[in-house]
Amino acid sequence: MKLFSFWRSLATYRVRIALNLKGVTPDEVIDVNLMQGKQRDESFRKINPMMAIPALVEDDGTVLFESLAILEYLDETHSNPPLLPKDPKARARVRGLSQIIACDTHPLIVPRVREFLAHEYKIDEAGVMKWGNHWHTSALKALETHLQSPQTGRYCQGDQITMADICLAGQAVGAAYFKADLAPFPTVKRIVDGLNTIEAFARAHPLKQPGAPASV
Amino acid sequence: MKLFSFWRSLATYRVRIALNLKGVTPDEVIDVNLMQGKQRDESFRKINPMMAIPALVEDDGTVLFESLAILEYLDETHSNPPLLPKDPKARARVRGLSQIIACDTHPLIVPRVREFLAHEYKIDEAGVMKWGNHWHTSALKALETHLQSPQTGRYCQGDQITMADICLAGQAVGAAYFKADLAPFPTVKRIVDGLNTIEAFARAHPLKQPGAPASV
Repeated sequence: MKLFSFWRSLATYRVRIALNLKGVTPDEVIDVNLMQGKQRDESFRKINPMMAIPALVEDDGTVLFESLAILEYLDETHSNPPLLPKDPKARARVRGLSQIIACDTHPLIVPRVREFLAHEYKIDEAGVMKWGNHWHTSALKALETHLQSPQTGRYCQGDQITMADICLAGQAVGAAYFKADLAPFPTVKRIVDGLNTIEAFARAHPLKQPGAPASV
Repeated sequence: MKLFSFWRSLATYRVRIALNLKGVTPDEVIDVNLMQGKQRDESFRKINPMMAIPALVEDDGTVLFESLAILEYLDETHSNPPLLPKDPKARARVRGLSQIIACDTHPLIVPRVREFLAHEYKIDEAGVMKWGNHWHTSALKALETHLQSPQTGRYCQGDQITMADICLAGQAVGAAYFKADLAPFPTVKRIVDGLNTIEAFARAHPLKQPGAPASV
């Protein structure tokens, strides 16, 4: 198994956490430097025509793409520990929370979107920061309301880690980058603080990857 | 079961198709007029704090949110016909294709994003149209490359309808709205043309819903 990764990619951070939780170690981790636009190289385009990471390549050559699809795949092929609860309604809540992050927030702040805002509409760095802050904060408001449910436990859904927690850890890193304060969202903050003490999360953190700076 | 819907919502279009395919008829379909900002009303915010549709409310009051989470839920609770193949790698491909649309494209063109571009950055209508066209076309390029795989059949994955087809039907409606031509993407076009002849898709089409105009 090969993982195409970059230290800063929050979608790849999700997959790294899941691999750590499942005890799966890729044979190779291949760097795709998003800051140098390497995701647009012809060689990587053949791996993932969407020109985005993560991509996970199985030993038979099957390429898996899109982080939530990869999490579901890892959960179906390595069942322990599960990343989804058993009950369909609880599964739907976990997937819904995950998608508030992985559909409604993160795709708005990936490099291709920030570059398009800057190049096409001449939006300056402060304007792009406001953009990232706005979408993170909007989603954090919705997430905090959801997480005030009695279904929330130590983690997003009860006391077992699910893919919603994996996504939430990334949302917190994105929020910090765009200076979106977590203080008004105490349930989010409590869960994230707990996740960050878990080795599978800590070891997958963007700043712990090869090539990462000491801080963002 | 109650569905919160609006004729124009492409995420709700996905859920309408799935309900039709599964033969499930909601007891009530409640209109949330996105063009009047009704998704931000306090009453709807209590249903879905993300202020977005679709939302599907089960008879016990459970609120299901985020379209892909709802599709997975419907598939888990109403197994016939399945919206995912059985093989984990094929399931990952279907989910990955779905997410190129439902994560990487559609969240960029929803009302809240277009309004933010217009109000915050003073981007005019032509600029917003260019935005929508650009993200639809980028994703269509990636989808067409993926769909040239021998795994593609009459539909995105073999000859059975999956959630990737449900998402693709919506992508085609969005592309038409933003004047993104499907002609350079013949496999996408062939599949969409086939889907549009199916009653479950045709009946769910945005322009067939209450309140819809004769054309967009």
